[in-house]
Amino acid sequence: MHVTLDGTVRELRTVWLEDGMVKLIDQRYLPFDLRIYEAKNAEDVAVAIEDMVVRGAPAIGATAAYGMAQAGLQGLDLKAVGDRFRKTRPTGQDLFVAIDYMTKASANGTDLVAAADRYAQEDIDRCRNIGKRGAKLIRNGTRILTHCNAGALAAVDYGTVMAPMRAAKEQGRRFFVYVDETRPRLQGARLTSWELLQEGIDHAIITDGAAGHFLGRGEVDLVLVGADRIAANGDTANKIGTYGKAVVARENDVPFYVAAPTSTIDFTLATGAKIPIEERSPQEVLHLDGQPIAPKESPARNPAFDVTPAKYITGIITEFGIRKPSQLGLLNKPAAPRKKGTAKKSR
Amino acid sequence: MHVTLDGTVRELRTVWLEDGMVKLIDQRYLPFDLRIYEAKNAEDVAVAIEDMVVRGAPAIGATAAYGMAQAGLQGLDLKAVGDRFRKTRPTGQDLFVAIDYMTKASANGTDLVAAADRYAQEDIDRCRNIGKRGAKLIRNGTRILTHCNAGALAAVDYGTVMAPMRAAKEQGRRFFVYVDETRPRLQGARLTSWELLQEGIDHAIITDGAAGHFLGRGEVDLVLVGADRIAANGDTANKIGTYGKAVVARENDVPFYVAAPTSTIDFTLATGAKIPIEERSPQEVLHLDGQPIAPKESPARNPAFDVTPAKYITGIITEFGIRKPSQLGLLNKPAAPRKKGTAKKSR
Repeated sequence: MHVTLDGTVRELRTVWLEDGMVKLIDQRYLPFDLRIYEAKNAEDVAVAIEDMVVRGAPAIGATAAYGMAQAGLQGLDLKAVGDRFRKTRPTGQDLFVAIDYMTKASANGTDLVAAADRYAQEDIDRCRNIGKRGAKLIRNGTRILTHCNAGALAAVDYGTVMAPMRAAKEQGRRFFVYVDETRPRLQGARLTSWELLQEGIDHAIITDGAAGHFLGRGEVDLVLVGADRIAANGDTANKIGTYGKAVVARENDVPFYVAAPTSTIDFTLATGAKIPIEERSPQEVLHLDGQPIAPKESPARNPAFDVTPAKYITGIITEFGIRKPSQLGLLNKPAAPRKKGTAKKSR
Repeated sequence: MHVTLDGTVRELRTVWLEDGMVKLIDQRYLPFDLRIYEAKNAEDVAVAIEDMVVRGAPAIGATAAYGMAQAGLQGLDLKAVGDRFRKTRPTGQDLFVAIDYMTKASANGTDLVAAADRYAQEDIDRCRNIGKRGAKLIRNGTRILTHCNAGALAAVDYGTVMAPMRAAKEQGRRFFVYVDETRPRLQGARLTSWELLQEGIDHAIITDGAAGHFLGRGEVDLVLVGADRIAANGDTANKIGTYGKAVVARENDVPFYVAAPTSTIDFTLATGAKIPIEERSPQEVLHLDGQPIAPKESPARNPAFDVTPAKYITGIITEFGIRKPSQLGLLNKPAAPRKKGTAKKSR
């Protein structure tokens, strides 16, 4: 992704391996500071995922892949490292896909750094294809609502939700994006707005509560969100707040699309009922930038994700095209080879 | 209201007149500091309303009433003062009711300080009756969701949404309240949680986006919100974010009640379509406690209220009882005498 900083443009990915270190754009400091987090070992990688140095299901997957490549270079027990990574964040599916991918690569005797690079490149390819497939939903004047960040920073590059927007922009279309700020971590206000600025796409940040107002007044034409895990029937776990938007969108006949690579689909879960929902620290709700925003005696609840039932989802934009939730089963077959470690770069 | 501060309990109202000054609990500093704002003249009062030293439709009404009483003491042109107050915040109805009330009192030669005191006392009486009428909705174990603050601080005392909760608590019932933090100004996290702590009512603060999650999982039994203006058909303007909650509540068959005194009903508006929606400074969205939370180049939109159509509202808890939105017209008659300046304290 292009990163304009102090007037110069750098080309960066969300995560990469360099000098034996897993390097990450530290997303906790954006948009105010561009810092690179350097993970020296598997524990550093695990902590980076837990503390949200990196977030977004595809980006977490790629980070785990590089973490396992690094562990391989350091001669560590890959199973133990994979088990540690599995405990970091329970909701997103790509994490588990990536660990399995690297485990298979290791079992097949594949070079692990090459395997991680291939996993990352495949992620970028999937995102670019999501862009090609989804761009047709965006016309001149389309007013999009998005939630959280499913941009380049949530993947290795290019993004999932941002992909159709980037592609539409590359095709010369002008459109507008309402960006939910996305409390408690403000990924919308901090990261999505920053990516839209880099791309020169018109937008406005709104509070999470304001999305309903604009949907209800006919000022949104399209809702585009990402996914952390999609069940086989299309039920979709995504950042907390997504479900409410989906219900209000349907009530107002506004199409609601999920943009996600097939690596996010968990075909072992029939429905979303069994997707584990991570509950993060109440301190994320009770503080902002370290400042308390509530009485110190008040408790908080902080579910990080919610599940949007498939019936509210108009379509899922995958790298293979736009599918109705009920059609996801058809994607199970093409996705299978990757699990066997035989994925091709051209996919 | 009881205000526990540094171990001592003080008994305060949201607004009162003392030593020729309109005094207000400065709600911008709660729950961290209890400061009293002292308005020396009508402009100070107007600025207090604009800058949200005081907020909440009934509290704004009472503040305007005391502001006009003060203006009367200072020999000012009441019409000009009323016109200044009318420009402060366009959405809430009580402001206009209070200005009319004081204008009539002046025309009738009534002592204006006595009139303002009577207006304030009537507000408290209305709130207490809302409590009596609404308490039956709350049983042992009821899990309530509320949005923004419609507590004692949003009225002169006792509150509107808080009234049924206080009454149920006084009757010995135990229940639980999910408190939406209510961005951008965080009235839920800062004020409602503080009031619930004072009352010893179990609660948890949640982000605005998390409300849908709890509604969707059957973990909310009752939604209780306030109102800034209610049209004759029951369409209700309330803090931004209310509409989305109402849609998700109905989708999940969770009863959705508005608690508001009849002073909030605008019988001159047939529907909510013409309720003016105040759009406040984008800086409220882009900052928190003076700290930027978004790139400085990103714009924001900041509608302060939204309108919930009557079809999503199970009932409106007024001082006269719980009414379906379609039954509001019946309340027009008893409310009428007050407009003529003949309101009785016993109402």
